[in-house]
Amino acid sequence: MSDVTLIDIKEEILSENRELAQQLRSDLRRRGVFLVNLMSSPGSGKTSLILRSLEHLRKVYRTAVVEGDVDSAVDAERVAREGFLAVQIKTGGSCHLSAAMVERGLDALPLESLELVFLENIGNLICPAGSDTGAHLSVAVLSVPEGDDKPLKYPLIFRISDAFVVNKTDVRDHFDFDMDTFRARVRSLNPDAPVFEVSCKTGDGIGAWCDWLRERVDRGQ
Amino acid sequence: MSDVTLIDIKEEILSENRELAQQLRSDLRRRGVFLVNLMSSPGSGKTSLILRSLEHLRKVYRTAVVEGDVDSAVDAERVAREGFLAVQIKTGGSCHLSAAMVERGLDALPLESLELVFLENIGNLICPAGSDTGAHLSVAVLSVPEGDDKPLKYPLIFRISDAFVVNKTDVRDHFDFDMDTFRARVRSLNPDAPVFEVSCKTGDGIGAWCDWLRERVDRGQ
Repeated sequence: MSDVTLIDIKEEILSENRELAQQLRSDLRRRGVFLVNLMSSPGSGKTSLILRSLEHLRKVYRTAVVEGDVDSAVDAERVAREGFLAVQIKTGGSCHLSAAMVERGLDALPLESLELVFLENIGNLICPAGSDTGAHLSVAVLSVPEGDDKPLKYPLIFRISDAFVVNKTDVRDHFDFDMDTFRARVRSLNPDAPVFEVSCKTGDGIGAWCDWLRERVDRGQ
Repeated sequence: MSDVTLIDIKEEILSENRELAQQLRSDLRRRGVFLVNLMSSPGSGKTSLILRSLEHLRKVYRTAVVEGDVDSAVDAERVAREGFLAVQIKTGGSCHLSAAMVERGLDALPLESLELVFLENIGNLICPAGSDTGAHLSVAVLSVPEGDDKPLKYPLIFRISDAFVVNKTDVRDHFDFDMDTFRARVRSLNPDAPVFEVSCKTGDGIGAWCDWLRERVDRGQ
């Protein structure tokens, strides 16, 4: 059977995506645009974190948001209502954003006048971890009500992310979320990535997260 | 181009899965086993709902649980610690359980002595909605901290589910979750499916959910 031609569709798609993502990343760097990919479960607070971060960073950078969703434009509408530039990508079923989709979203923005773009990926912890978006930084957002066992169940996203934001710390007293246990579980998969504790509701911890992000944007990586 | 042979890999896989799921469903019915498929975001409380439901139903039916996860066996271990029969399926990357995976899980159980099996699908609102597991009933579990906008963003899972359970009602005062808005959004996609409000922490609402489930199990559909 050594003369059988194996066509691995999934690997071909992934390989094409990786190539396009790398091109997109270089192209954005050349144009001075820094792209941050945010991933999380549904309802962890990606959109809220983007809005809180933009409040802090709008005076420092010229910003915009690319929102991804299977359906609806509620997130982009919410971001636009707050006075920020937003584009919505609807995947129509796909559980992650590919580099090609991100490129289409960015094409709808005036990139020449932008410095920082937030990309909100599709809400789940599995598919987005396997597909490079072309972003310079990938951040996983968790939340206290989801529980501290997510690193055990979804190790890939914890391995590939550059930083972690734990949202909804304001309700910590109402849930069995052990922050030390969570941090130890993250560390075992990804020793160097920082973990930020925030509440997008109260604003707690947003400053420290934005300071770190600014340092990364200014460094360009 | 009319003589081009189109090979739609995705449609072939889906079609094979549908056929296997239908066979599995009939086979289980013939053997007197009722299979309930639970779907949700990560951390909405599928495992907790299964445990609470088993407390109510263990005196009525001979039960077991098939747990699905990308990695780890923490859920099956938790169920087993509570004294229930549990099998863990690890998908190793796949974001949903296929009928073939479910069949493998069921093969590890003494089906001849069982009447009710809970199936915990992979934690996300996208992939499980597109793949028939062979279950007799599919239930989507939501939770108050996730927000009331999920029907707008993930319409397919709301269309194909037979019932909805909203968990974590005990923390309702701490979140902007409007139950009337949520119910209206569900109704617009799925007018006949009931919505149960529960707290797996306090046990509130579990009785009503289990009464409804018993009626479905006894009817065999």
